[in-house]
Amino acid sequence: MTDGTRRKIVVSTLAEAEFFAAGGFDDIIYGKPVIPSQIPRCKKLQERCTQFHLLFENEESFYSLERTPLENKKWTVFLEVDIGGCRTGVPWDSERVIELARLASQAQNVEFKGIYSHSAVAYTKTSETALRGQAKLDTQRVMGVCDRIRQAGIAVDSVGLGDTPSCSVIDDSMANLTEVHPGNYVFYDTQQCGTGSCTMDDIAVRVATRVISHKPEINQIVTDSGFVSLSHDGLSSNLPNGIAVFQDHPELRLQRVTQEHGCVSVKSGDIDCRAYPLDSMLFIYPYHACATAANHPVFYVHSGDKVLGTWKPVKGW
Amino acid sequence: MTDGTRRKIVVSTLAEAEFFAAGGFDDIIYGKPVIPSQIPRCKKLQERCTQFHLLFENEESFYSLERTPLENKKWTVFLEVDIGGCRTGVPWDSERVIELARLASQAQNVEFKGIYSHSAVAYTKTSETALRGQAKLDTQRVMGVCDRIRQAGIAVDSVGLGDTPSCSVIDDSMANLTEVHPGNYVFYDTQQCGTGSCTMDDIAVRVATRVISHKPEINQIVTDSGFVSLSHDGLSSNLPNGIAVFQDHPELRLQRVTQEHGCVSVKSGDIDCRAYPLDSMLFIYPYHACATAANHPVFYVHSGDKVLGTWKPVKGW
Repeated sequence: MTDGTRRKIVVSTLAEAEFFAAGGFDDIIYGKPVIPSQIPRCKKLQERCTQFHLLFENEESFYSLERTPLENKKWTVFLEVDIGGCRTGVPWDSERVIELARLASQAQNVEFKGIYSHSAVAYTKTSETALRGQAKLDTQRVMGVCDRIRQAGIAVDSVGLGDTPSCSVIDDSMANLTEVHPGNYVFYDTQQCGTGSCTMDDIAVRVATRVISHKPEINQIVTDSGFVSLSHDGLSSNLPNGIAVFQDHPELRLQRVTQEHGCVSVKSGDIDCRAYPLDSMLFIYPYHACATAANHPVFYVHSGDKVLGTWKPVKGW
Repeated sequence: MTDGTRRKIVVSTLAEAEFFAAGGFDDIIYGKPVIPSQIPRCKKLQERCTQFHLLFENEESFYSLERTPLENKKWTVFLEVDIGGCRTGVPWDSERVIELARLASQAQNVEFKGIYSHSAVAYTKTSETALRGQAKLDTQRVMGVCDRIRQAGIAVDSVGLGDTPSCSVIDDSMANLTEVHPGNYVFYDTQQCGTGSCTMDDIAVRVATRVISHKPEINQIVTDSGFVSLSHDGLSSNLPNGIAVFQDHPELRLQRVTQEHGCVSVKSGDIDCRAYPLDSMLFIYPYHACATAANHPVFYVHSGDKVLGTWKPVKGW
């Protein structure tokens, strides 16, 4: 992911930033708009890293940075631009992008690096062609913002677009971006397959589960993966396979999950319980690997049947 | 919960059983049907505890126990009966309840304790009256199973019904039960309010979140609680408040969550962002406390503004 270096990563929590900084990583972007109460922790990260970048999208948080000078360096910030995802960020077509870029470019204690954006709309696409079209549109929007800021006489070093779907298809126009920030692609999942960003063969993660009950009278088997393991993400997705997809068992459909139970039926006809012996292990491709992975205290890295190592994700905030 | 003792608890994972046994707890029920591959861990728990009880609901797992004798004691088992929840358990109205109870009562290495059941249907009720009716029906079913087993000449020491909704209303008929197994009532949540099992005042848990963005142009504020904090549970519940309820802010509606963002609007009209200053803290009553709590690495136990301690939940399986 980092070409053998420990540089240039994006994190979604300060706990992750602290974990990676402690492990020698540098040039880290905290990918959510900073708020004033986080500045003490961010200051420590700035002292620990050569480069630790923040997002901003309003004056209030910006002034809090400006009022907190660092020793021998400046805060480095990206303006978060909302290109249609309706989450955080300044609307791409507003005058505020210019006002805030100017504010940052004229500050004493802050260096304005450029623009950060995330394409949530790409997640709604259902084919590679549609996805490429969205990636082109999103790139146009973010490059358009960049052009407007430059026309106002403000230097923009970095122009970034996030999200795994766009970064998986790479429209030619994306060559104008200076960086991309995908995350999910490390694992991929069935939701990503639905957008056209990957195939099932690209999915690098499974949840291992065991059959704990046969219920032929209600056409069901029960596994020991509930929402504590899989998450509820995808429950309302109306996918033909239900919430998730079982490896080597395309006939199975995960109907519902409770805390530690998964209720599984077949897509059509009656279930033949003999095909899924009690205690046998099944492997589930998650609907949303980010949500599922976040539930697990440890990931087993394997090659075939051999476990080569374990990864422990950073928890908390 | 245990009247000052460290006895008589139910756990939903073996990891929890091992944690509590290591902490001196005893008389523990593992509340899912045991499968053969778990028997080595269960054997260690049997050696550690005076009493560690298992659920069974099929011959195959039962025979695995029978083939694994313990030193100086017997396995103690409950027959899990499905009283309509369609999860694990033998159907309450089937002949198999008698067959399996007889099997357990005649075994050399196993002691048959009684019946365990969980009322999932109670969760679908929407008033205390309806809930009490369901609790009565569920109790009738499980007591009916008990009577049938006794009529077959088999002793039944213990008759248990689970679930927080039923155990919160306590129908008179439940006096015939020997134990109940609620779990959620430790915290309660807005889902439970919806069933009629509690009021908002009974909910003993909140998620603290901060306002990270104002988006008046799309009638929204954004908080830093996404699905990694709140879970997706309740997303399809169509509750008037969206996925969750904000303390002291009944006007707010949590519209959607992404990994680390919560998009919040008001139930009607335009949002007045000044009422929710950037960086201010809001407190969320979760829709499903079990799902939300499972996402957090630490719970802060407080009295007013004073943190009295921290609880760290058991993770993994």
